[in-house]
Amino acid sequence: MIIFENEHFYIEDEPSSLPWVKIFTKIPYKELTDIPKELRVQLWEIYYIVEEEMRSYFQPTKINMASFANMLPRVHIHVIARFEDDAYFPNPVWGEKLRQEKTISKDFKPFYERIAKKIKETQ
Amino acid sequence: MIIFENEHFYIEDEPSSLPWVKIFTKIPYKELTDIPKELRVQLWEIYYIVEEEMRSYFQPTKINMASFANMLPRVHIHVIARFEDDAYFPNPVWGEKLRQEKTISKDFKPFYERIAKKIKETQ
Repeated sequence: MIIFENEHFYIEDEPSSLPWVKIFTKIPYKELTDIPKELRVQLWEIYYIVEEEMRSYFQPTKINMASFANMLPRVHIHVIARFEDDAYFPNPVWGEKLRQEKTISKDFKPFYERIAKKIKETQ
Repeated sequence: MIIFENEHFYIEDEPSSLPWVKIFTKIPYKELTDIPKELRVQLWEIYYIVEEEMRSYFQPTKINMASFANMLPRVHIHVIARFEDDAYFPNPVWGEKLRQEKTISKDFKPFYERIAKKIKETQ
């Protein structure tokens, strides 16, 4: 589901028990250094808003951020809220599963709306 | 081993069969959004140099970038050159191992020296 988009970027949620979104450029680039410099700055501005809203809304133990795109080489940024009792912690969510999926009691929708609102306010 | 340092940052190599370095701020911060804004800009400038040098020197299939620090909450950026025949590809290096470790024929030392030289040139 697309939770935000503007001229150059869109943000999708990743189906997961954890708060997890992915930031994409609309034009596909293979690597971060293929993105034009002005857009890189905008990408990180969006990332910081997502991270700040994720921290304030979910109060996670840690934020995890990653860019892989090995299967389909189209760079995008994963932003994931991690909790000490989540299924993989302290492993990355791509690592070994250590316990049952955590149930997050908070609704994700207001978080998505806050991201979209905050990014729009900075534009 | 520290392969670069200046007033605010240092870069370490990760012992691995793959080209893999980690960029740290000298002052420890928990999350990227805890880093002062001017330093965030410098951090990404360093990251881009590392990624560019990694791409030109090793010609990898894909660059992987990540920030986890779940065990010890001290934010740092992993930069890893990935190859389609490396041990984990297309999984992240934190995922399931699929084949034997790849042997990289190129010496890593000139790559480390190029990173340090390039970053110093921009300062």
